[in-house]
Amino acid sequence: MESHDFFIDLLIILITARIFAELAVRMYAPAVIGELFAGIVLGPSLFGWIEIGETIRLMAGIGIILLLFEVGLETNIKGLIHSSKKSVIIAICGFVFPFLFGFIIAHNFFSMPLLTALFIGGTVTATSIGITVRVLTDLRLEQSRIGQIVLGAAVIDDVLGVMLLALLYEFSIGGGVNIINVGKVFLFISAFFVLAPIVARLISILINRFDEISEIPGLIPTSIISLVLFFAWLAHTLGAPELLGGFAAGLALSRRFFIPFGIALQSDINFSDRIEKQMKPIIQLFTPIFFVVVGLSLSLRDIDWGSATIWIFTLSLFTVAFIGKMIGSLFIHENRFSRYMIGMSMVPRGEVGLIFAELGREGDIFSNEIYASLVLVIALTTILPPLIMKWLNTRESVIN
Amino acid sequence: MESHDFFIDLLIILITARIFAELAVRMYAPAVIGELFAGIVLGPSLFGWIEIGETIRLMAGIGIILLLFEVGLETNIKGLIHSSKKSVIIAICGFVFPFLFGFIIAHNFFSMPLLTALFIGGTVTATSIGITVRVLTDLRLEQSRIGQIVLGAAVIDDVLGVMLLALLYEFSIGGGVNIINVGKVFLFISAFFVLAPIVARLISILINRFDEISEIPGLIPTSIISLVLFFAWLAHTLGAPELLGGFAAGLALSRRFFIPFGIALQSDINFSDRIEKQMKPIIQLFTPIFFVVVGLSLSLRDIDWGSATIWIFTLSLFTVAFIGKMIGSLFIHENRFSRYMIGMSMVPRGEVGLIFAELGREGDIFSNEIYASLVLVIALTTILPPLIMKWLNTRESVIN
Repeated sequence: MESHDFFIDLLIILITARIFAELAVRMYAPAVIGELFAGIVLGPSLFGWIEIGETIRLMAGIGIILLLFEVGLETNIKGLIHSSKKSVIIAICGFVFPFLFGFIIAHNFFSMPLLTALFIGGTVTATSIGITVRVLTDLRLEQSRIGQIVLGAAVIDDVLGVMLLALLYEFSIGGGVNIINVGKVFLFISAFFVLAPIVARLISILINRFDEISEIPGLIPTSIISLVLFFAWLAHTLGAPELLGGFAAGLALSRRFFIPFGIALQSDINFSDRIEKQMKPIIQLFTPIFFVVVGLSLSLRDIDWGSATIWIFTLSLFTVAFIGKMIGSLFIHENRFSRYMIGMSMVPRGEVGLIFAELGREGDIFSNEIYASLVLVIALTTILPPLIMKWLNTRESVIN
Repeated sequence: MESHDFFIDLLIILITARIFAELAVRMYAPAVIGELFAGIVLGPSLFGWIEIGETIRLMAGIGIILLLFEVGLETNIKGLIHSSKKSVIIAICGFVFPFLFGFIIAHNFFSMPLLTALFIGGTVTATSIGITVRVLTDLRLEQSRIGQIVLGAAVIDDVLGVMLLALLYEFSIGGGVNIINVGKVFLFISAFFVLAPIVARLISILINRFDEISEIPGLIPTSIISLVLFFAWLAHTLGAPELLGGFAAGLALSRRFFIPFGIALQSDINFSDRIEKQMKPIIQLFTPIFFVVVGLSLSLRDIDWGSATIWIFTLSLFTVAFIGKMIGSLFIHENRFSRYMIGMSMVPRGEVGLIFAELGREGDIFSNEIYASLVLVIALTTILPPLIMKWLNTRESVIN
């Protein structure tokens, strides 16, 4: 790709994302909806002006990892541990029910093959932690009790989703499910989440020391980006999703970082502040690219809108994808508003669902119609909950 | 390319660049030498760990444009106009002499064909404005009188170089030199440099107004990057090098911006400050990538070190490339130190020379040996002057 062609693509993405985000906010929807819509408008669904090239895809990848880094940076880890029981309940229910319901609809009601049904279950079960987080941030709820429960649940959900993906992938290439490998993957991810923040913390102390003696400006942007990229790579290498690496790195540099067993690694608040100030513009540049790319990945034209089967299938899947995520909130002790908000936060599927769908299509497990249905379900689960949450939140604020 | 492979490449580039830059500074060389050296170490010349993929190449492209944007942002345009006569002399001499000498050496002494000799002349004539600027910045001379003369000269030199490239390219594909097209290209570039800063200024006023009413954070990074990309694209479309677009955009947003005929476009100093503060981390992230890529593009292994002809050819070319750029400084009224510094600043060839060399190799105009020689000449002209300038500057400071 010639650089001037790339420049024009990137600038169209950035400007369109901004315009639609501003419009969305004025229509009481979260900014992320506008950015997704920008992708739908620019992509194959409508005008087809932008194709996702390698560079845009990789920059979007940096965007989602940096977004999770920012979330980690602002996470109150003590609060996270406090709300962990509720998070586990929400995560496990939100993982099991949609998977089960999706599988039953596909296999028992629509007589699809076992493998296809398993992949459909997988597609409708994975929460999009990125979109969830952005919606919570837009509503200024990311540091609230609700936000912390959802965040913890989304992280667990994401890990479960990736393990399911690994299993189904193994299954689809004919390897069969191997219980020893499953255990190994699980062990790796657990070790990563305990060790990564400690290692990242030690590295950040090194960077801080080095920053004091360096004579060239610009240490923080390059070294912090390097740190985040390193943990994303490490996460992938250990079999975890890359964005969890970004989250772990952010957690470690957070002002409120907390290590079990009282290891003496004091946070330098001044340093954390400087990191936040210098990283913000970079994060704000890259994250919209990710959400536009999610929109670009949807091809709403692929759907044969005249078929009744497709509508019934899509609507049933959407219903279970929606309700399946809400069930968990019945098992925790919260008021009705919090339950709605928590359940709703888990509904968006976004990129992880799209990964499942894409894998199913590439492996010839999904027909074009099933793929189109799944894309539509993912789009609906991604677009509706933020609107409802925004409305619920405004109503609640008015009442109180 | 898989995203985790890309992440590890990018982080190796960023960290190695930083380490070698810190080492270079401690050895009294400019940071850019360290970054170039990082590229040589990582690239085919030594370990061959990193190959320049599309994404790294495009990010390097953003890096050089952002660097020029930063220079424009900090440029005192009144000072530039003041020193313009000297800049023109330096630029024209620095363009004509190396081209002529390089052509004569290749054509008359080494009996090379006309087209090959013309391309060799072109390769040794183009100043690398990027490296020049970085060196001046490292020495804190970019705002000095010397810096302003060199900057003006480098910009003119770059434009002349690109026009020569366009001509030679036309010539090499058999089109012949068309004087009407030459005039058109020249006209386009002139118009661009007069109109671009005014348009960019008007857009920046829009951004500033919009920034006051926007409810979503992050307007400045995305809109300023979009503005810079737009002008880079526009520059290319009008037949000018992309980096001049970045320079024009920076000029327009500069605190000291000045429009002829007294058009009333007052600079908002507060806004300029915010732009500088938020753009700095992004610029500091992208620019080292460019200089590492320049190092990665050099393949010192391609040289057959045993051949005497190659050594004589390389040394003669290097000599005229070096002296050819120094001659111009004899024709201007400055003290000896300033003359040395100005002449030396124009010596680095870097990326523009590499574009000429690459084009010659792709068009089968250069043999492997000539290409290797030219790469070596470019490397030497890039590496030596900053070291000499650093030394001259330190000596001068000690004396005064």
